[in-house]
Amino acid sequence: MAVAAPSRTDHLGKPSFPEAAAALKTMLEDELAATNEVILDHLGSQVSLIPEVATHLIQAGGKRLRPLMALAAAEISGAGGQNARYLAAAVELIHAATLLHDDVVDDSALRRGFKTANVVFGNKESVLVGDFLFARAFELMVKTGQLPVLDRLSRASCTISEGEVLQLETQGNIGATEAMHLDVIRAKTATLFEAAAQAGSSACGPSPHAEALASYGANFGIAYQLVDDALDYGLGGQVRGKSVGDDFRERKMTMPVILAYRAARSDEERGFWEAAFGGGEASFEEARRLIDRDRIGEAALHHAEGFAEEAVRAAESLPEHPLKEVLVSLAVSSAARPF
Amino acid sequence: MAVAAPSRTDHLGKPSFPEAAAALKTMLEDELAATNEVILDHLGSQVSLIPEVATHLIQAGGKRLRPLMALAAAEISGAGGQNARYLAAAVELIHAATLLHDDVVDDSALRRGFKTANVVFGNKESVLVGDFLFARAFELMVKTGQLPVLDRLSRASCTISEGEVLQLETQGNIGATEAMHLDVIRAKTATLFEAAAQAGSSACGPSPHAEALASYGANFGIAYQLVDDALDYGLGGQVRGKSVGDDFRERKMTMPVILAYRAARSDEERGFWEAAFGGGEASFEEARRLIDRDRIGEAALHHAEGFAEEAVRAAESLPEHPLKEVLVSLAVSSAARPF
Repeated sequence: MAVAAPSRTDHLGKPSFPEAAAALKTMLEDELAATNEVILDHLGSQVSLIPEVATHLIQAGGKRLRPLMALAAAEISGAGGQNARYLAAAVELIHAATLLHDDVVDDSALRRGFKTANVVFGNKESVLVGDFLFARAFELMVKTGQLPVLDRLSRASCTISEGEVLQLETQGNIGATEAMHLDVIRAKTATLFEAAAQAGSSACGPSPHAEALASYGANFGIAYQLVDDALDYGLGGQVRGKSVGDDFRERKMTMPVILAYRAARSDEERGFWEAAFGGGEASFEEARRLIDRDRIGEAALHHAEGFAEEAVRAAESLPEHPLKEVLVSLAVSSAARPF
Repeated sequence: MAVAAPSRTDHLGKPSFPEAAAALKTMLEDELAATNEVILDHLGSQVSLIPEVATHLIQAGGKRLRPLMALAAAEISGAGGQNARYLAAAVELIHAATLLHDDVVDDSALRRGFKTANVVFGNKESVLVGDFLFARAFELMVKTGQLPVLDRLSRASCTISEGEVLQLETQGNIGATEAMHLDVIRAKTATLFEAAAQAGSSACGPSPHAEALASYGANFGIAYQLVDDALDYGLGGQVRGKSVGDDFRERKMTMPVILAYRAARSDEERGFWEAAFGGGEASFEEARRLIDRDRIGEAALHHAEGFAEEAVRAAESLPEHPLKEVLVSLAVSSAARPF
């Protein structure tokens, strides 16, 4: 194995995840600004509520990782330009649409530290504006005229919805397995990173680097989501704009819970998790106590590390490019994220 | 004016709307069956809830007017075949997705006489499965490889969402005008009929008949929705599977209300409408009494007739084809629908 596992100790002194993400943003500053222009140009509507809701969500910030992934893939593949910006914008709009619908489905009240659109504008508005953003995303993709990219992105959109439905089905199911959870994550999160990287690479036609970049995106996406799920249990400390305990309250089966339930030492402890995810009242503090005691955070991150390693391996096969190194840093630091 | 207005008396002995729709279905029987196959093939998913929800909706029936419009346009334009079926299926899936989301937004309990998916499966499920159907629709369109069609259909999807948002904004606004209501109808209903006809015609490449068919679809769509809105006030008698009074309860501003409010004879009557649409309790029987007294049904249908006439005019410019006559009958009878 040529690539060292990105464990905590290996990467002391290496860029942290926020530093790697910031480096990516800086290197792609002009392209990202042009992509933001494309997005804002396409949020326009005579129906004033649409830009209001959409701008509320999109201006709220976020790391813009998905469009950055598309733009980086395009640059590395020599496919930068207007098509890449259209695709990066499309990917961000698909992401925004899924966030609007997710917040309705989850009854969420906060996202990135801001009130969610469903709270500010209403559930109905969020459903309909999400549909608008989704349709606009397709309109943008079509502008590139790249049929294989359109095919891949429309399939990816199907897969994302399937992942969301699958997550809804496993919600409250304490018997959910690691494999089931990885299926959810692959579909609902990794697919869009994968499609973003693949689309960016193929923005001007078939690219020899598209599959390596797709593999990078997919594996990075899984690692990223696994760490995100750990952050929701406060593992690794408080992160700005991120609320803790949402997954627990919504009875979403994520890796920390799956691992903690398996590590339970008594019927009483198993009963605690069964009650918590079966709809009973349960203390988040007790959940965290058990998770800390059994070092579930480290076990969950260990899972992430395996996928980050795969992402690094995929990136290493790419041609030399300054952005390649940043992608490697991003993947390596993703699994070590909060620590 | 070459075409007679399709008034009640002119068309005694001519096919009724259900007869014209049935004739269209019969003439396109094989193509519609093949399109249904395409739809069922694309509802498959490892996530079992998706085919369950989708099948619940699609098997519930419906007139299949939108795919029939696409298939008829394709046949008339000499563009029948697999692409036309893909597009007809895509149009029906977009329609199904909007129905799923509409029922969530409107809190509807019945559609076509069956319990709605949001009641049977839940709102969350309806939102997410709607997204899946929408994405599948794009996947199907992409299979045709016809970029101008993709562009038109993705723009149409944006317009439909805009129409839905606009409708939500005018809900409960007794000051809404005919023009505002026609904007809503054009966007939320006519656009998909227009896009269906245009896409069918262009299924194998640019077609000289695409614009006439698009105009037919758009004008037919407006007439169809205006009559549908009148049916919701029981104008023209009970129609199977159609519940009455939904728009009134949901405070949707439709043509009967706009006309009845304008025809009100006293402050008391204006007050009745203002209270009913401002959120107060109001009697549907009283609304119907005022609507009947002022012959609002006929006035609303008169609006529809104008658009039906335009649709007929567009159809008359098409080359001779057995389906052309059926499209003319369909448009003529649409405005005379319930009578």
